[in-house]
Amino acid sequence: MAGERLMTYSVPLIAPSFPAAEDMDGDYRDILDSGRFSNFGPFERAFRAALEDHVGQSVSAVTFSSATTALQAAMLACVDRGSAARDVLVPAFTFPAGPQSIAALGFTPRFVDIEPVGLHADPDAAARILKRDQVSIAGIVIGNSFGTGAHHISAWEDLAGEFDVALIIDSAAGFGSAYEDGTALGARGTCEIFSFHATKPLAIGEGGAVLTRDPDLAERLRRISNFGLDDDGVARLPGLNGKLNEFAAAIGIRQLAGLEADIVRRRAVHDAYRTAVADVDFQRNAERSALGFVSLVLSHGTDRDAVVGDLAARAIEARRYYAPAVHRSDLFAGGAPLPVTEDIEGRVISLPSHRGVTPAVVEAVAEAISARRS
Amino acid sequence: MAGERLMTYSVPLIAPSFPAAEDMDGDYRDILDSGRFSNFGPFERAFRAALEDHVGQSVSAVTFSSATTALQAAMLACVDRGSAARDVLVPAFTFPAGPQSIAALGFTPRFVDIEPVGLHADPDAAARILKRDQVSIAGIVIGNSFGTGAHHISAWEDLAGEFDVALIIDSAAGFGSAYEDGTALGARGTCEIFSFHATKPLAIGEGGAVLTRDPDLAERLRRISNFGLDDDGVARLPGLNGKLNEFAAAIGIRQLAGLEADIVRRRAVHDAYRTAVADVDFQRNAERSALGFVSLVLSHGTDRDAVVGDLAARAIEARRYYAPAVHRSDLFAGGAPLPVTEDIEGRVISLPSHRGVTPAVVEAVAEAISARRS
Repeated sequence: MAGERLMTYSVPLIAPSFPAAEDMDGDYRDILDSGRFSNFGPFERAFRAALEDHVGQSVSAVTFSSATTALQAAMLACVDRGSAARDVLVPAFTFPAGPQSIAALGFTPRFVDIEPVGLHADPDAAARILKRDQVSIAGIVIGNSFGTGAHHISAWEDLAGEFDVALIIDSAAGFGSAYEDGTALGARGTCEIFSFHATKPLAIGEGGAVLTRDPDLAERLRRISNFGLDDDGVARLPGLNGKLNEFAAAIGIRQLAGLEADIVRRRAVHDAYRTAVADVDFQRNAERSALGFVSLVLSHGTDRDAVVGDLAARAIEARRYYAPAVHRSDLFAGGAPLPVTEDIEGRVISLPSHRGVTPAVVEAVAEAISARRS
Repeated sequence: MAGERLMTYSVPLIAPSFPAAEDMDGDYRDILDSGRFSNFGPFERAFRAALEDHVGQSVSAVTFSSATTALQAAMLACVDRGSAARDVLVPAFTFPAGPQSIAALGFTPRFVDIEPVGLHADPDAAARILKRDQVSIAGIVIGNSFGTGAHHISAWEDLAGEFDVALIIDSAAGFGSAYEDGTALGARGTCEIFSFHATKPLAIGEGGAVLTRDPDLAERLRRISNFGLDDDGVARLPGLNGKLNEFAAAIGIRQLAGLEADIVRRRAVHDAYRTAVADVDFQRNAERSALGFVSLVLSHGTDRDAVVGDLAARAIEARRYYAPAVHRSDLFAGGAPLPVTEDIEGRVISLPSHRGVTPAVVEAVAEAISARRS
């Protein structure tokens, strides 16, 4: 199965590190002593508080078993199911989970093109759909692509406000990233969704969270994550099971403690790529990102697949996110063409940023890209 | 929040026990060594195989992060979203997760009454809805209430076959239970859903599984649990994130090893209640159940709430599942009356069955029920 490949590379794209066994042994004994294994036990509450402290800006955090479950919950909480509008605006240059969640919940993804600088959904393209074509939408799900904060996030907030729909921001890879004004991701739009999958900068195996400045929404989301139950055990809200168990929360607390130091190291790797690799476009604002990996756009004429192959031959893993873009899959085919998406998906390449990336690896990447430039 | 109460009872309804810390320390070190934290790693594969071995009957198991996520996946796989029919048949005497999942995925729960002997959805009541009222349905979700195998499961299979819709069986509390013919739960209908929540007989904190005799369906479900991705990383199926992480799978393997001995003890407690408590109806076929707790129906005229209160005063926890029944909640109100459900929900009481239930506890329960019989 895809998603987490066998590590046959000496420099894989992702190399997660996890807490020491002796630390987790102590946490496990504490869990046994508490008799609480899930349902908002002491580790979940502490992890939630630590997420809030880390992001600041008075956000409330709601933990989830995965970012996708978090996204489903956010849609149940924020997207009007009684509305006649069934379309939800979403980029096609994204992981399939967003469009799939929209479809699973009975809505229709309405794909919007990206802009070529940040690689995020383009608010101008959205305005054309909403104003020129007068498409009615029930909500908006955009991504902070590759965990990098979109430079035009205010334009999206304005657009969502103008059309009175929720703006759900998929910041899956972005815990620890900042917007261009220096504020941490997590406090924009109606809410932001984060992933703590093993491949993410803040890795706990499987897990996720919703962060929002709206404490009432956070409380609703917490209930939705536990079957919509009120304190009396009666379900009065829509619901699912999105609860993060205590073991996962314990890992999260320990991983969060090491996150900032890890990001400093990753940013140094990013700087090294910027210095060494010529004639490519780095993603705008990536220098403020958590940088689970480094993504760049090769020049027209560079053979991207050959670069990936050359690096694989040197045991360095590079990947092609997100190719093919979601709107070209059989699941969702049939929408309008997305020219920027279709250009970028053939040129973007994602490179490792972890501590295994030595100066020699950076040099090998630069050489491989240079060699395949026509 | 409801769902897992603070244990202020000396005999709580549920008293989960978990693997020893030294065992889990070894497993955690193995996970660190493998570098695999989720996405069908070695512990998940071993747990899946152990589930299949335990149930036999050539079933295939697909693990999930929760039973509710498993149910969502089963609905994505088996319930025709292109059909004009939007109703899904489901009992109201059930945990809200089933009806909520149906609603979340854009369908409408069509509530069916239960029968008073097994407390399961009644196939005769369903036949009236389908044949007399000619209601069109997209699928059927029934429950093996309290984990006890329904004695009329064949009638449900016949009905689903006649109307050519999937029969998804919510066996959440039933891992380790058997049908009346002695075969283990897990091999009936289109598929069966199991929960491994901390409160269930096979407790891993949060987790679940789908079991099915159809290996192609199992493979589809496994892909759906990982965003519908094919081996090439392209999503060609609907999808969500339902993956069970390696830590949870490791706990599951150890818990499964102790399950049968635990069930033997629980069945002895059930026998003791049967001997001691007069003038009540025990659930049919409960003697073949995993018996996470023991449920019985008090006689008309017994004050159920007073019994619960009297037991609480003696620090023994009893609960009122499922009251109020789901069709009377504001979420779903407006359907037809369900006379059997509305009678049973006022009389059913669930009692602890774990190793803390001494003969004195059984005696106290019998006395409390007898004292409140009018």
